[in-house]
Amino acid sequence: MKLHHLIRELREENQTKIVLLVADGLGGLPMEVNGRTELESARTPNLDACAREGVCGLSIPVLPGITPGSGPGHLGLFGYDPLEHRIGRGILEALGIHFEVGPRDVAARGNFCTVDDAGLISDRRAGRPTTERCVAMCQLLQQIRLPGLEVFVEPVREHRFVVVFRGDDLGDAVNDTDPQQTGTAPLPAKGADPASQRTADAVNRFVAEAARVLKGQAPTNMVTLRGFARYPKIETIQEVYGLRAAAIAVYPMYKGLARLVGMDVAEAGSTLRDQVETLQKLWDQYDFFFLHYKYTDSTGEDGNFPAKVEMIERLDAELPRIRALHPDVLIVTGDHSTPSRLCSHSWHPVPTLLLAKTCRPDRVTEFGESHCLHGGLGQFPAMHLMTLAMAHAGRLGKYGA
Amino acid sequence: MKLHHLIRELREENQTKIVLLVADGLGGLPMEVNGRTELESARTPNLDACAREGVCGLSIPVLPGITPGSGPGHLGLFGYDPLEHRIGRGILEALGIHFEVGPRDVAARGNFCTVDDAGLISDRRAGRPTTERCVAMCQLLQQIRLPGLEVFVEPVREHRFVVVFRGDDLGDAVNDTDPQQTGTAPLPAKGADPASQRTADAVNRFVAEAARVLKGQAPTNMVTLRGFARYPKIETIQEVYGLRAAAIAVYPMYKGLARLVGMDVAEAGSTLRDQVETLQKLWDQYDFFFLHYKYTDSTGEDGNFPAKVEMIERLDAELPRIRALHPDVLIVTGDHSTPSRLCSHSWHPVPTLLLAKTCRPDRVTEFGESHCLHGGLGQFPAMHLMTLAMAHAGRLGKYGA
Repeated sequence: MKLHHLIRELREENQTKIVLLVADGLGGLPMEVNGRTELESARTPNLDACAREGVCGLSIPVLPGITPGSGPGHLGLFGYDPLEHRIGRGILEALGIHFEVGPRDVAARGNFCTVDDAGLISDRRAGRPTTERCVAMCQLLQQIRLPGLEVFVEPVREHRFVVVFRGDDLGDAVNDTDPQQTGTAPLPAKGADPASQRTADAVNRFVAEAARVLKGQAPTNMVTLRGFARYPKIETIQEVYGLRAAAIAVYPMYKGLARLVGMDVAEAGSTLRDQVETLQKLWDQYDFFFLHYKYTDSTGEDGNFPAKVEMIERLDAELPRIRALHPDVLIVTGDHSTPSRLCSHSWHPVPTLLLAKTCRPDRVTEFGESHCLHGGLGQFPAMHLMTLAMAHAGRLGKYGA
Repeated sequence: MKLHHLIRELREENQTKIVLLVADGLGGLPMEVNGRTELESARTPNLDACAREGVCGLSIPVLPGITPGSGPGHLGLFGYDPLEHRIGRGILEALGIHFEVGPRDVAARGNFCTVDDAGLISDRRAGRPTTERCVAMCQLLQQIRLPGLEVFVEPVREHRFVVVFRGDDLGDAVNDTDPQQTGTAPLPAKGADPASQRTADAVNRFVAEAARVLKGQAPTNMVTLRGFARYPKIETIQEVYGLRAAAIAVYPMYKGLARLVGMDVAEAGSTLRDQVETLQKLWDQYDFFFLHYKYTDSTGEDGNFPAKVEMIERLDAELPRIRALHPDVLIVTGDHSTPSRLCSHSWHPVPTLLLAKTCRPDRVTEFGESHCLHGGLGQFPAMHLMTLAMAHAGRLGKYGA
């Protein structure tokens, strides 16, 4: 990636501290015409003060109109081109349950399903079993052994689990075995290249063994696998930016995403207050801190506008403790928008503020979508935020004489 | 470069005149929170009138957060992608003293330094000799002959000089011989590839010869070389844009940068008034005029806020003489920001105005950073400014039917 070559060339070491506070799904929409978004409705005196002192804008996570998942959303914020680096569903699922995937792994999402006597799928989700049953069924699958490679099976919840195939030269260009319809048998796996065919062979053996050990366990008497994904090769934050980086996140997937780019993952407790306490403890040991706050996204996904407003206000309340550490650069943003009105991630640009001594002032006096639109950062690709953070931290030298 | 292919395809000839007035390091920062920048503090009735009549914006020289040197800053303004075209320090130094570098050249910056009896550097700048002494020492170095290639040595000033190695297939992936510290001997040159090793061999012979001819000339009894750079291959402004282009600059480096992209370099006198007189004289002979004004940068580098304000006001005072020529397109911008507060180039976007009869009006009434933020040009990559100039000059046809 060209930008990363440039940054490796220009970067300089110093003692500055950068804090990236990600309020997941921060951006929103009003519930009615000419209304206010969640962020605009929230009382946020501390974020507003940052907006006045710093510079604001709207970040575009991937491209205009593209709604990102958590993977691309965070990769962009970490300074990686989310179109160049893809994290497959299998790997994300594995990260999400804290499974430590590594460079020899191909991970897939598994579903328990129900097949009839002819082997045709009658329920793609096996009647949504309890998570307890999912755990028990995974224990059966964990008995499966394949020649020449390791297999790991871990429950997620209900009908969902994760399979990881670990071995040498395993490709991930393998089709989903889930036919996405009932009345059909699970599809055999095929690899698009020799390395992927090795994976496909293992998958087909695994599925055959699964059918054997799950026989008589209806409705959870079969499995489908999808989203085969190799562990991605990504240069670490340390390699690219020369930053010792710590992630302070509560949810496993965000810890996993941070680990993927080489961050150390700290024990964070369960509340934002706990996370800020961890930040205080680690302050001297790292240059860069990624704080992940989940609840702005989950309340948005629930379509609960007032709850999202409240979660934003809780975030605001913790800000003075972060600022008391005097970070040289403080960024508050989201990995994407999650408007309560849509109950889902969206493509809308994400309100972003950057606070540093070297900010050129803009006229933004409140932190909110409509104000950010007139901010000095303009509308910009999220992946450039790290370069700006590096610049404001005095960690980038001049390009060219 | 894709953009240049497009422009070659679409360009049309006509009689229009384009003036690009570059106030070096124009962009700034306020000295205190909520203060005004240098440009916002300056009384600029003529620039403000242009802002009202034309369209304003903020240009991003390279990428957000990237601080450009003069080379990339100007290449961008000339319409070249500064990430694709790199001009090494040695070439820039050679251009800066009006040395006519060519395609077989590798240029480097040289420093006279002082070494003790053990050959260890005791002063990396040889006590900053007078320029007269620099000239005399360079005359000694000019006696050096190397087998199979030509060497040119030219004084710059004080301890600084330029060496140009001219020969076939010389690479420039050669390390600096300046160890950047005292108490150490100059480093031997090594090439990263066979072509660069040829250069490195020549460099090592040159340095050995230099040590011999400078022996007894303490404090200027040794040299270090750095910034080895080959002459870059760049399509000319004439080739890409079909413009007969003239550069009216006072400082050699900017003349050199203009020559690199094929501009004719005019004799410009020493003041902006002289430059404008040259512009008047050349008006009929060229289509495109690059006027370079240095003092907004040098006062910024000095950290002298009031002096930078004054230099902006002097620039403003010359504007009516330029407008009296009725250019079809007049652009006023900088190659980068040089905030007095930082005493250096910076990454902050650069206030830019474009005046032409075809501007769509915006609401900008003053030429300043905070006003430009709300201008019709938005925030845009500097390399697109030339395309806009061509369009407003009626020199670009329609793309596609």
